[in-house]
Amino acid sequence: MLDKRTPLPVDEAIARCMAHTQSAPIITVPLADSLNFYTAEDTIATYDIPMFNKSPYDGYAVRSADTAGASGDNRISFRMIDHIGAGAVSREALQQNEAVRIMTGAPIPQGADAVVMLEQTVETAEGFTLRKSFSPGENISVQGEECRQGELVLSAGTLITPGVQAVLATFSYSMVNVRKKPDVALISTGTELTSIDEPLLPGKIRNSNGPMIAGQLADLGIKPTIYQVTADDYEHLLAIMREALQSHDIIITTGGVSVGDYDYMPKIYNALKADILFNKVAMRPGSVTTVAALGSQLLFGLSGNPSACYTGFELFAKPVIKKMIGASQCYAPIIEVKLTEDFLKANPFTRFIRAELDLINRTVRPAGFNKSNAVIAIARSNSMIMLPGGTRGFKSGDRVKVIITRLTDVTTW
Amino acid sequence: MLDKRTPLPVDEAIARCMAHTQSAPIITVPLADSLNFYTAEDTIATYDIPMFNKSPYDGYAVRSADTAGASGDNRISFRMIDHIGAGAVSREALQQNEAVRIMTGAPIPQGADAVVMLEQTVETAEGFTLRKSFSPGENISVQGEECRQGELVLSAGTLITPGVQAVLATFSYSMVNVRKKPDVALISTGTELTSIDEPLLPGKIRNSNGPMIAGQLADLGIKPTIYQVTADDYEHLLAIMREALQSHDIIITTGGVSVGDYDYMPKIYNALKADILFNKVAMRPGSVTTVAALGSQLLFGLSGNPSACYTGFELFAKPVIKKMIGASQCYAPIIEVKLTEDFLKANPFTRFIRAELDLINRTVRPAGFNKSNAVIAIARSNSMIMLPGGTRGFKSGDRVKVIITRLTDVTTW
Repeated sequence: MLDKRTPLPVDEAIARCMAHTQSAPIITVPLADSLNFYTAEDTIATYDIPMFNKSPYDGYAVRSADTAGASGDNRISFRMIDHIGAGAVSREALQQNEAVRIMTGAPIPQGADAVVMLEQTVETAEGFTLRKSFSPGENISVQGEECRQGELVLSAGTLITPGVQAVLATFSYSMVNVRKKPDVALISTGTELTSIDEPLLPGKIRNSNGPMIAGQLADLGIKPTIYQVTADDYEHLLAIMREALQSHDIIITTGGVSVGDYDYMPKIYNALKADILFNKVAMRPGSVTTVAALGSQLLFGLSGNPSACYTGFELFAKPVIKKMIGASQCYAPIIEVKLTEDFLKANPFTRFIRAELDLINRTVRPAGFNKSNAVIAIARSNSMIMLPGGTRGFKSGDRVKVIITRLTDVTTW
Repeated sequence: MLDKRTPLPVDEAIARCMAHTQSAPIITVPLADSLNFYTAEDTIATYDIPMFNKSPYDGYAVRSADTAGASGDNRISFRMIDHIGAGAVSREALQQNEAVRIMTGAPIPQGADAVVMLEQTVETAEGFTLRKSFSPGENISVQGEECRQGELVLSAGTLITPGVQAVLATFSYSMVNVRKKPDVALISTGTELTSIDEPLLPGKIRNSNGPMIAGQLADLGIKPTIYQVTADDYEHLLAIMREALQSHDIIITTGGVSVGDYDYMPKIYNALKADILFNKVAMRPGSVTTVAALGSQLLFGLSGNPSACYTGFELFAKPVIKKMIGASQCYAPIIEVKLTEDFLKANPFTRFIRAELDLINRTVRPAGFNKSNAVIAIARSNSMIMLPGGTRGFKSGDRVKVIITRLTDVTTW
């Protein structure tokens, strides 16, 4: 338990969280349900791809030797002895000047070593003629040219995208080993908070952090247990925390972590004998963000201010959850682009500003009103500008670092 | 019905699809279920934010006039007459040298016009003293400073992200108007295709396009009706298409759109009297991609080759679906970066290459083996290089256009 609040640099705070994070157990899910999990083990090619020599075109399979010397003046004739589509296997073995009419994806018949495309032939009663010679292997998709049986195709920790599902299907992985999503409890605290279906009395506000964090978790495929909005009552909060700890890997609270008279979270961490990883981060907003550990359980005490709350989740909770569920890459990319508006506030601490990034033109600007309690800027943002501490503000035209939080579509192709 | 297949430039093909796309009807969903829909109408501020003048700090609300002349040599004393946390409203109106102890988020009491932070005070038996003067409005979050009632907060067509959910909650939108996701039928065709739970016989392959397209749809929040993998049988396929058309807005087929002997889709579009928007696109892979319309229903005939199938979905089906569900921005961003590998194939048509984009270093390279029938490259890709038609290949160091398909996390912070 830290007695004094010593601000920790952001990168160290993240590192402490990650050092306390353990991988979730491996579970097996049907391929169709595996989207947005991470592979828990390397994906190995269970056979060559292609599995057999196949035709990449609609045409005729021939013996290349039979095409030697073909020209416009010397068209060579072939006799069609079979006709197969993809999925069929010809029982014929080609003899001299024989051909099998073959469709894209069908296996090359025995004896054949080249494919003549339909448009390179002229049909005859018996088959076709051609006017050019073919080399051995011409127009054949060769077994194993994409990958060989036993090859590492995708490393453990790969996000399961539609393309990955296609690969898993290709290699007959009908069930996929992934890591279990953590059980998360979400507790919004604050006497001022009113649920969306209750009347809004004087001095009260809507609970926006709850739906927001639930959404951030949903983006990770996690449906949290949501505890009733709770008045700032120490005993009640402590009881809820104890209850949540019975059955959750992660407890996320919003509010109550500062030093106000009704900020009970520090006292609760104390009562729970939680190991405080940090309770002050050298960042704005969200300097009071607190993360504590109880064995393998992690307690994220996010600020009650929406912008601080959002930022705390993105910086600390998200990479922790990604690590738990086995992602090999846990952090959002940070790029450097040009600021197109002045931001003249001094930064004693690292400052995070919800921002509009234009990836195409490589420019960024704050997404409007950007105080700690701002909420609209979060909605308008696809990124966060990250200004280093100890600076005196930035001017339009300066290059700044930006964390990309979301890929934004555009209006024209 | 086009008789001859005339290759259409990619942008024109996209434009034709979009011109045929109608907005889906508006439905109302609970806020908690609204993630990744698009707002169907402008989001208007239902009140000022903040709703009332409030304290941004833990401290004391005072009358600034009473602090005039305060200094280290002239500490001014205040008497605490009330104590409120966020969510509480003081019933007191401040008189001379009175103060209300106030926590972050609590409404400023009557008469007060400044907040003194706790750390700027020294406690006394009755209240506190301070050593500096405050201006009117100092340390107050002013009603409406973030936004004013009636203001347009988010335009219709905004993707509902966690931040947007926070905004909707803030303004008491417990139900949200969005556009219904289309009903999509997914039909993988090809005699060679084998479901993942069946034995793989000679000449057969797994159906990878089905799971892949299902995943691409799932990323848009759509669970398609999946029709049994179908042998290349015209009557059977036509019957399935007719059945699917009874109850779906979009029919996506994979395979059967080329000119092979068992490619029945052209004949089926004909039998259905569908209006062919195009059946040849000046692109590789996927030149045979066909899109047809039947009234407001759209039929996407994607190639059976996985890379072509994937590309066809991303280029044509995805923006169409986004437009249907009301997205104001329907296209993935295209940026220009440096190629770090030679790609020396000539491009008669626009060529799309599944690629690994490094957003941080602004480089890109093909994601390995990249023929039309490749599948692993899709899984390894986060982008597609787009090489213009009529070019003779590109060299490492050349600048190329890249469609970003996915934001990829990184390993270090």
